[in-house]
Amino acid sequence: MELTVDQVAQLIGGKVEGNGELTVNRLEKIEEATAGSIAFLANLKYTEYIYTTGASAVIVSNDFEVSEPVKSAFIRVDDPYSAFGRLLEEYEKMLRTVKTGIENPSYQSESATFGDNVYLGAFSHLGDNVALGNNVKIYPNSVIGDNVSIGDDTTVYPGVKIYANCSVGKSCNLHSGVVIGSDGFGYAPQPDGSFKAVPQTGNVIVEDHVDIGANTVIDCATMGSTVIKSGVKLDNLVQVAHNVEIGENTAVAAQAGISGSAKIGKNCQIGGQAGITGHLTMANRTTIGPQAGVPKTIEQEGGVFFGSPIMDHRDFLRMSIALRKLPELVRRVSELEKNS
Amino acid sequence: MELTVDQVAQLIGGKVEGNGELTVNRLEKIEEATAGSIAFLANLKYTEYIYTTGASAVIVSNDFEVSEPVKSAFIRVDDPYSAFGRLLEEYEKMLRTVKTGIENPSYQSESATFGDNVYLGAFSHLGDNVALGNNVKIYPNSVIGDNVSIGDDTTVYPGVKIYANCSVGKSCNLHSGVVIGSDGFGYAPQPDGSFKAVPQTGNVIVEDHVDIGANTVIDCATMGSTVIKSGVKLDNLVQVAHNVEIGENTAVAAQAGISGSAKIGKNCQIGGQAGITGHLTMANRTTIGPQAGVPKTIEQEGGVFFGSPIMDHRDFLRMSIALRKLPELVRRVSELEKNS
Amino acid sequence: MELTVDQVAQLIGGKVEGNGELTVNRLEKIEEATAGSIAFLANLKYTEYIYTTGASAVIVSNDFEVSEPVKSAFIRVDDPYSAFGRLLEEYEKMLRTVKTGIENPSYQSESATFGDNVYLGAFSHLGDNVALGNNVKIYPNSVIGDNVSIGDDTTVYPGVKIYANCSVGKSCNLHSGVVIGSDGFGYAPQPDGSFKAVPQTGNVIVEDHVDIGANTVIDCATMGSTVIKSGVKLDNLVQVAHNVEIGENTAVAAQAGISGSAKIGKNCQIGGQAGITGHLTMANRTTIGPQAGVPKTIEQEGGVFFGSPIMDHRDFLRMSIALRKLPELVRRVSELEKNS
Repeated sequence: MELTVDQVAQLIGGKVEGNGELTVNRLEKIEEATAGSIAFLANLKYTEYIYTTGASAVIVSNDFEVSEPVKSAFIRVDDPYSAFGRLLEEYEKMLRTVKTGIENPSYQSESATFGDNVYLGAFSHLGDNVALGNNVKIYPNSVIGDNVSIGDDTTVYPGVKIYANCSVGKSCNLHSGVVIGSDGFGYAPQPDGSFKAVPQTGNVIVEDHVDIGANTVIDCATMGSTVIKSGVKLDNLVQVAHNVEIGENTAVAAQAGISGSAKIGKNCQIGGQAGITGHLTMANRTTIGPQAGVPKTIEQEGGVFFGSPIMDHRDFLRMSIALRKLPELVRRVSELEKNS
Repeated sequence: MELTVDQVAQLIGGKVEGNGELTVNRLEKIEEATAGSIAFLANLKYTEYIYTTGASAVIVSNDFEVSEPVKSAFIRVDDPYSAFGRLLEEYEKMLRTVKTGIENPSYQSESATFGDNVYLGAFSHLGDNVALGNNVKIYPNSVIGDNVSIGDDTTVYPGVKIYANCSVGKSCNLHSGVVIGSDGFGYAPQPDGSFKAVPQTGNVIVEDHVDIGANTVIDCATMGSTVIKSGVKLDNLVQVAHNVEIGENTAVAAQAGISGSAKIGKNCQIGGQAGITGHLTMANRTTIGPQAGVPKTIEQEGGVFFGSPIMDHRDFLRMSIALRKLPELVRRVSELEKNS
Repeated sequence: MELTVDQVAQLIGGKVEGNGELTVNRLEKIEEATAGSIAFLANLKYTEYIYTTGASAVIVSNDFEVSEPVKSAFIRVDDPYSAFGRLLEEYEKMLRTVKTGIENPSYQSESATFGDNVYLGAFSHLGDNVALGNNVKIYPNSVIGDNVSIGDDTTVYPGVKIYANCSVGKSCNLHSGVVIGSDGFGYAPQPDGSFKAVPQTGNVIVEDHVDIGANTVIDCATMGSTVIKSGVKLDNLVQVAHNVEIGENTAVAAQAGISGSAKIGKNCQIGGQAGITGHLTMANRTTIGPQAGVPKTIEQEGGVFFGSPIMDHRDFLRMSIALRKLPELVRRVSELEKNS
């Protein structure tokens, strides 16, 4: 992308002050911006940077007034934050090369079917009866197992592995290294101390508008399905065990883990590195802090919990403060004992 | 799989009550089952579902008596749980497509050798002197480094990477994204604050009947071998550092990490997200709770530990209860001080 | 490698005592060494093993005196530890097969360029405008996105995925399963509870001499760059979120996670499974213990912190000791109350 400041202003419906013929080719933060970039000023906390920024142009509010001379051109709009958001989206569209067609060599079973406008990267592998919707993009080196279906407009980044019999909905994004449908961790202990694997015969169902972060793993169900409902967002390196169900629009941050058969509600937020025990239910709109440990069912909707094992977040805060004073408390008790 | 209820009964040595000519094609849980499926009732806690389940047939005990009419056919056996287990195994065998032969394009060094009945998926890569046993399955996009040997009946799922000079035993399952033999994290700090890598010249030895979960990593030894003994089960996203040894039949849950040169005993169970410090020894039959942190050697066999740093699980329970009351305890001590 | 003990002695400038014509082909620890190997004795704690080791030769100090007969040959040097280190490096060089050339099939965009002496493994994929320096090694099944540049002497192990527009410096090592440049976890919550993705238009810049462990993930910036400075060492399964900056020569142990926009100083050491909150700054030379949680900015340079949330390590130690006695403390306070 190489646009003039005038062209950018036109794109976002703004008015140029200064040199509109300068060319810009990227978006940067006002405090870090260098020549050739465009920045914005929405939060007045950052006002000082308007006088020092290297940005070729800055998007500012219509009513913003300078107190010193500035070097950058201005693009004046009503709401700089929204205008910049729109610009970011436009920019992303331009950045995103639209890949289509089939690169060779790639491997497609004869029974695989696909919709219009599909992209298959080289070294991607489609098993028997794979069914791809319209506009599906399978980047290089991804492996799609037998009988897997993938809905319209879903993007599978390089090196994703989907086991047989799973399904992925529409408008999903599966990032590199994602594994869907690996065997659940289910073993029957034997009298001699060894383990016998419990057959894992189920699958994974990923519904629509689900994003799955890099190197995240979702195991197949022992029977039936591990289910990731519509709108769920999973960050990187997340573990989802067999027979888990994650409700609509729940977000799970990086490196969190959800144990077998846990049923997570809708609109929950689970912090990074948190751990959820198996066979429990988590009510809708629950918030779980980072590194927290959830040992049992949460029935109350909309709760906020921290710690391992979790407490209500206000109790956790009070406990954390008291904990720092614990050695002092021990001394105070000893003192009382001496004097009693 | 499409069987009649009569055929299923024959398979597990049961007796049909009701319509034996219905066809079923999957196994489901009694509380979720729908038409066309077969379920079981072993735990009487679930008895209520026998009257509402949609399952076409339910496996029940010979002495189970109904108190209301039911819609499903029954298959009566002595032990419904075991019968269902056998059925699950049969079902898994039918599901599992038996892959054999060599898909093209794949890459095999001329010095690679392999036994009977091997499957090599497309885009798999076998380095120099790779030796595969009988019935080994290498799924697509896996990379097997120079001089690696893999024993009979082992399955390597798509996208596994094994570095040079490692060995994997018989009847192992390596799930997608597993990395075996990457460099250990060993650096000598230099006077200028930079690090010099300590050469990692060893390998990884994975013995027989070992399962390794998706995206789990096992580093090679600095010298000698990182060793995963027979019967070990590692869940997903586990970290095993250089020179670790894990004893026979030990199970490690997802996202746990074992630091360098730790020696883990036999028949241990390590919870999810637990962390084990390096250069320690863990006695046989130790159980470590989820998110626990093990800072030093555990000499006592058969112990059960929770917390970070770990405590005996009974102490941990008492401590956790007391911790919730800590802010109140602070107030009580202040009160005592006021009155003393 | 197959050398005589005499040849090894010559390599490290030592003097042979015993049979110099024995051949050795590997390095082992003195306590585990078997015939055909070479070991060393530097730490006198291990002296007892000199009489029982199976090593064909042991590197010992010039002034080491035996108290009983030994079976192994000796190679006497001034400093056995350094001599062994040199030997380890030589050994590693011999082990490391020098891969060069292009294996087929591999995929290179016509606009990809590369320096001298490059290795491209089969099924590797180079996008448009990829630029590889001299001596770059791309192992099989790695995917290098459009416009990515990789500096001289960098090694990319099998199955690495680098998204478009990222750059990797000189003399880096990227281990198997590494993902660089995946989308940051940025979503704007919508009134209906769903999420709208914030476009992630930035990239990742990895500077020189950086090592990245297996299955570690580094997300691209929302705008601008996620930056991994020169000399940084990341262990396996580490999470680095969007817009993070990690300073020179900082080391991050396995399974640690760094949240969005955190700015980590130089020469820090971050323990395994530690979690760093987003939008904070960590001073240079900070040490963070394993499983610790860092909730806010650390301004003091050179601090050492443990716990979640973190405390100064001395406070953490005192607190941990007091915590074990908490149930007893509760009893003591009850006793005092009874008597007051």
